[in-house]
Amino acid sequence: MLIRRKIMQYNDMSKEELLVLKESLNKEYAEAKAKGLALDMSRGKPSAKQLDVSLGLLDTINSSSDLKSLDGTDCRNYGVLDGIPEAKKLMADMMGTTPDHVIVYGNASLNIMYDQISRAYTHGILGNTPWCKLDKVKFLCPVPGYDRHFAITERFGIEMINIPMSESGPDMGMVEEYVSKDASVKGIWCVPKYSNPQGYTYSEETVKRMAALKPAAEDFRIFWDNAYVIHDLYDDNKDEIADIISECEKAGNPDMVFEFASTSKVSFPGSGIAALATSANNIADIKKQLTIQTIGHDKLNQLRHVRFFKDINGLKEHMRKHAEFIRPKFEAVESVLEEELSGLGIGSWTEPKGGYFISFDAMDGCAKAIVAKCKEAGVKLTGAGATFPYGKDPKDSNIRIAPSFPTPEEMKQAADLFVLCVKLVSVEKLLENK
Amino acid sequence: MLIRRKIMQYNDMSKEELLVLKESLNKEYAEAKAKGLALDMSRGKPSAKQLDVSLGLLDTINSSSDLKSLDGTDCRNYGVLDGIPEAKKLMADMMGTTPDHVIVYGNASLNIMYDQISRAYTHGILGNTPWCKLDKVKFLCPVPGYDRHFAITERFGIEMINIPMSESGPDMGMVEEYVSKDASVKGIWCVPKYSNPQGYTYSEETVKRMAALKPAAEDFRIFWDNAYVIHDLYDDNKDEIADIISECEKAGNPDMVFEFASTSKVSFPGSGIAALATSANNIADIKKQLTIQTIGHDKLNQLRHVRFFKDINGLKEHMRKHAEFIRPKFEAVESVLEEELSGLGIGSWTEPKGGYFISFDAMDGCAKAIVAKCKEAGVKLTGAGATFPYGKDPKDSNIRIAPSFPTPEEMKQAADLFVLCVKLVSVEKLLENK
Repeated sequence: MLIRRKIMQYNDMSKEELLVLKESLNKEYAEAKAKGLALDMSRGKPSAKQLDVSLGLLDTINSSSDLKSLDGTDCRNYGVLDGIPEAKKLMADMMGTTPDHVIVYGNASLNIMYDQISRAYTHGILGNTPWCKLDKVKFLCPVPGYDRHFAITERFGIEMINIPMSESGPDMGMVEEYVSKDASVKGIWCVPKYSNPQGYTYSEETVKRMAALKPAAEDFRIFWDNAYVIHDLYDDNKDEIADIISECEKAGNPDMVFEFASTSKVSFPGSGIAALATSANNIADIKKQLTIQTIGHDKLNQLRHVRFFKDINGLKEHMRKHAEFIRPKFEAVESVLEEELSGLGIGSWTEPKGGYFISFDAMDGCAKAIVAKCKEAGVKLTGAGATFPYGKDPKDSNIRIAPSFPTPEEMKQAADLFVLCVKLVSVEKLLENK
Repeated sequence: MLIRRKIMQYNDMSKEELLVLKESLNKEYAEAKAKGLALDMSRGKPSAKQLDVSLGLLDTINSSSDLKSLDGTDCRNYGVLDGIPEAKKLMADMMGTTPDHVIVYGNASLNIMYDQISRAYTHGILGNTPWCKLDKVKFLCPVPGYDRHFAITERFGIEMINIPMSESGPDMGMVEEYVSKDASVKGIWCVPKYSNPQGYTYSEETVKRMAALKPAAEDFRIFWDNAYVIHDLYDDNKDEIADIISECEKAGNPDMVFEFASTSKVSFPGSGIAALATSANNIADIKKQLTIQTIGHDKLNQLRHVRFFKDINGLKEHMRKHAEFIRPKFEAVESVLEEELSGLGIGSWTEPKGGYFISFDAMDGCAKAIVAKCKEAGVKLTGAGATFPYGKDPKDSNIRIAPSFPTPEEMKQAADLFVLCVKLVSVEKLLENK
């Protein structure tokens, strides 16, 4: 049985073979359950040890430090809406753009994204009709994608349209069709490098086609969440993403993109700095609100980050240390998946070169049951469906695996349980039709 | 002349006397202008020396510190939407309420206020119609008041209605009339203790009447900006403000108030922590959005604050140190005003026991000219009109003086110039009608 399991596709098995297999898997599952695991693979969260590599950040400023920014601003006091110059430079370099395109915000890029949507809804973009006054606003959502993106657009009653992802990015034919023909399509959510959850990086052609879109709506915007722009796992095998800001400029669409990034998974989640990059027109439009909305963001924390990382090279060097923690976890999962599921025809998965996730596609109709089975035995996964708008995966097939938080050993245990659940649920599914 | 100036009301002077006085004042002004002053009394901004007393905050956590909150949360990582328990407790004690009423936010209470209005506009409050779907939304604005409050409501197209302030707070008869009869009145801006700019503290009766309002609109809310709740200038002569949250509960209006506070003028402006206090119903309503809007606020900075101040007693002790810096500046201004303007009938002013401002009322029609004259000679004041909605002071009379930033010596210089400008502009005004 053990040998056949590796070489025979489940689908080719007879009912009898499946029943025998099911019994043996059920036994394994009962044993696994008895171990009382309590592991969390649900969110892209760094481990405590990984966070330790950023501890020096807390020593960069203290009561004896010079607390002035390069332009002489006392970072302790009021003032500065768009970030101290050196923080703008650091975040610009991270995104591959220039400081004049950048506003440095507080601790969460999610908050910046929410703000862009909220402002478009209440006040409109660059003089266009506020979205709250329109009958219908639509967003394109490459799927599978990031649940928190979809939650923002859902919150504002924006209709979300699924766009299939491939290894080179979203289906650009579909994107071009929607964007050029439907003026109610106002935006698209993108995670261009090491996409969440598949870890795909948009090809140069995809980026260029994205920048060259001819939107029916003047206020159509690309929401370019460059969350994993420097989050490579391999030093000698990394993806590159073209600078969307300059590509949009070249294509005559300078105002068409809002780019987001943060140090949440670089320094400390929740205590990092986040930034927006966009055109001068958009920045002027945004500042009109920002000056009413806040007294400015935490400049001391900006100073802390700049003094710790120094420059883009410091950032990259720091990310190499992170990779040493995360890489073994990805590899632990991938090796279990390969070992246990390869050739069985009951699942496929991605092997990203960066980012925080592995995407797993089970047989249609199995994802929810697999996640439930894992949970029952103490392994928490991201809810099935979460990677799709409205939490609805039409095929009930995609599962997001977030390997960063557990230790590599725990990750191996969790992956062992995961593949067991995949097998068990797949057998049960196949038996339904025998 | 010098003696008469002190005892004779300008209004009682003859045209000839005024012309002589004008000539002498003009000479003084020319001399003052020649000094080339460059002083800023425009915003309530602590001085660098005053900020030094908070420097220890930066030493409270470093790379060797225990970075867990009392409930064991690793403050470096993701998680916690409403603040770590000890920060909730500290901010609750500061506002005079309990931690279950509190959400701790990021660095700016202004941002929390903006958020409340923005959410009411886009999604409504507790199931009520979003304000963007209503024809008319109105806010009551006690005047003079805080320009940044008015800027938020103006931004959302909310009609602002002036309510006169007195030493005991807003005219409650007017407030009760508007709130009980007009369902489009959705809120009132309040700075209940050491109000901006007058430094008045609402009386106990005012607070009780406020809490007992019978609003025509279910989603009417009191925006209670308790910005100066612990910002006393005198240890033995301070105002007290009743707890609006419990007063609203007692009056059967538990959901009627949003209270705001921050440590912006306690620790570092821009790098402090801010909080909202409100009912359990409102908190649940707000969290529905907050979970979509952000990954949480900076918990390390919350930890920094709790470890530095320890508790409410630590906060109060710290504020005594602040008072030592600010008090002499208030007194310098007040003594120049008293010395130079008392008895002239050309201006009146407040003498607050706390907060950041002195409010000056010039003769009608003189405020803009006084501010312009000061600016011309190098002293920047808050723009005349700024203390009223839409920047329109109907009497062109109110000027906000912010004495906190300059040194006491500079403050004296600035005040000397200010009174000179008041005199000069008043004389010119009186001459118009002679």
